[in-house]
Amino acid sequence: MIMKIGVVGSGAIGLYVGARLQQAGHEVRFLLRRDYEAIRDSGLRVHSVRGDFHLDLVQGFRRPEEIGPVDLVLVALKTFDSHFLPDLVRPLLSQQTAILTLQNGLGNEELLADAFGPGRVLGGVAIIGANRGEPGVVHHLALGSIRIGEFAAGRSPRCERLAADFSAAGIPCEAVADLRAIRWEKLIWNIPFNGLCTLLNATPGALLAHPPTRALVIELMTEVISGANAQGLAELIPVAEMVAAQLAKTEKHTADYRPSMMVDRIEGRALELESIFRIPLQHAARRGVAMVRVGMLLALLDQGEQGERGGQKPDRPEHR
Amino acid sequence: MIMKIGVVGSGAIGLYVGARLQQAGHEVRFLLRRDYEAIRDSGLRVHSVRGDFHLDLVQGFRRPEEIGPVDLVLVALKTFDSHFLPDLVRPLLSQQTAILTLQNGLGNEELLADAFGPGRVLGGVAIIGANRGEPGVVHHLALGSIRIGEFAAGRSPRCERLAADFSAAGIPCEAVADLRAIRWEKLIWNIPFNGLCTLLNATPGALLAHPPTRALVIELMTEVISGANAQGLAELIPVAEMVAAQLAKTEKHTADYRPSMMVDRIEGRALELESIFRIPLQHAARRGVAMVRVGMLLALLDQGEQGERGGQKPDRPEHR
Repeated sequence: MIMKIGVVGSGAIGLYVGARLQQAGHEVRFLLRRDYEAIRDSGLRVHSVRGDFHLDLVQGFRRPEEIGPVDLVLVALKTFDSHFLPDLVRPLLSQQTAILTLQNGLGNEELLADAFGPGRVLGGVAIIGANRGEPGVVHHLALGSIRIGEFAAGRSPRCERLAADFSAAGIPCEAVADLRAIRWEKLIWNIPFNGLCTLLNATPGALLAHPPTRALVIELMTEVISGANAQGLAELIPVAEMVAAQLAKTEKHTADYRPSMMVDRIEGRALELESIFRIPLQHAARRGVAMVRVGMLLALLDQGEQGERGGQKPDRPEHR
Repeated sequence: MIMKIGVVGSGAIGLYVGARLQQAGHEVRFLLRRDYEAIRDSGLRVHSVRGDFHLDLVQGFRRPEEIGPVDLVLVALKTFDSHFLPDLVRPLLSQQTAILTLQNGLGNEELLADAFGPGRVLGGVAIIGANRGEPGVVHHLALGSIRIGEFAAGRSPRCERLAADFSAAGIPCEAVADLRAIRWEKLIWNIPFNGLCTLLNATPGALLAHPPTRALVIELMTEVISGANAQGLAELIPVAEMVAAQLAKTEKHTADYRPSMMVDRIEGRALELESIFRIPLQHAARRGVAMVRVGMLLALLDQGEQGERGGQKPDRPEHR
């Protein structure tokens, strides 16, 4: 089924997934800021490990009112801007519009459900290594699949259909019954690697090559798994197997990749500390699990934020 | 009693304490590296919160054999160079020579006792905020006292005499019966502030002004006190009172002070991770206390060491 899709948050993930969907024949409308002029003038170039391509005609808009109602809103906004979402998404909704957030961490579906009702909302995690390049260019560097699920847990024909459409568009997509499980599973990677790579300005591969930080990565993963396993997910995550799988996947695919939070800091943006750290810490604490090292990592990253902001960096292209 | 004193390790603490002792009439011989020419040509200038002074004639030497036997060896070498100590100290010893180490952290008296016998060895902690300036200049910025004790615990006339001599020289000095207690007490400050200031390139005052890092400082202090209180010291350290006292003292005296480890990193030297972090962690673990956040801080600092030395850090932001 051809969908009309609105992409809200045209960073690396939004641009890459939207471009694949347009390439597959869907009508995709991007809400753009930084890349508006470049994409209007020259289209969108995708450098991908699965083959480069170029979209000559891309529908880019500056204001959501210009996009109008769509079948699917794809939300890929950085979570430190999530408070803008109600105003950005509202103009894109018809009676039937579904909203799928691929944002990082926890709390994203809740925010959309509060604004627009839980029935519209799906969430997903992107297992995609991508960075933006110069305006009008996105780099897909590694991996490339997504997993999605209904906010109101359980399976749905809508979710299955979306998964099939994504897969057909070259974004291998699995529909899952327990969205919280995949959210927490992604945190097992995101918390140690986004956190430590940002704090230490080192790649995942460098952290894993050095025994003390490799041990720390494992300790952080173990804490996150403890937090996850206290949430009453459908299935308990086996600690040793999950840690081994995450390490192997990282060493194979993303050793030299710069996690999104590291890129955010290098480029002077805010960090997604609320969704990737603070809300998971709260969920764990509510179930009696103290993720001590995760909490320490948050405090260390947060101090850096204070430092950055005290310096009043002028160049914050992502911020409205 | 006028002593002949050999200073081994002429950094900020060695130069400042040695200068005060010479000012008070003792014969002080400094083993110098960086400052040798400057001090030979122009003497030693001390900028001190207790009054500036200048020593025109300073006995500086490049090799310990040129110093010869002394009454007291004052060891203030950075602990990452401690493996040089047996060769540096041996030429300074007569039958009666005492050795007092004011080095940071744990393990310092043990190394000297292994090399020269436990009977010669005293240890102490310097509560002195001092940095080196240009060659031939030392800055005494805050506080200024020391506490010393016998390595073989207990009181001794020798230790009491030394304390009186230091005090008379303008270095208020207390002789204590339990050297391990003052070593651990200093770690309560050194571990959080040397560690976090170095990792985050922030002053103690900046860390205490920001609630998440203030909380982390308190958590780290609490872990160190737990480690200390498991060692069978003469008296248990009361957690709340000690933390409050450390915070108040820091805010009053050393909020803007750069801890020695932070200066070491800024100036490209190695860090005193073994004596300030690794050995205390081992002592705590041996008594069944896991100082989790202290261990994490060590791993993070150690990675920075690797990064500096191994060139594992990505050198430039990614701009394509």
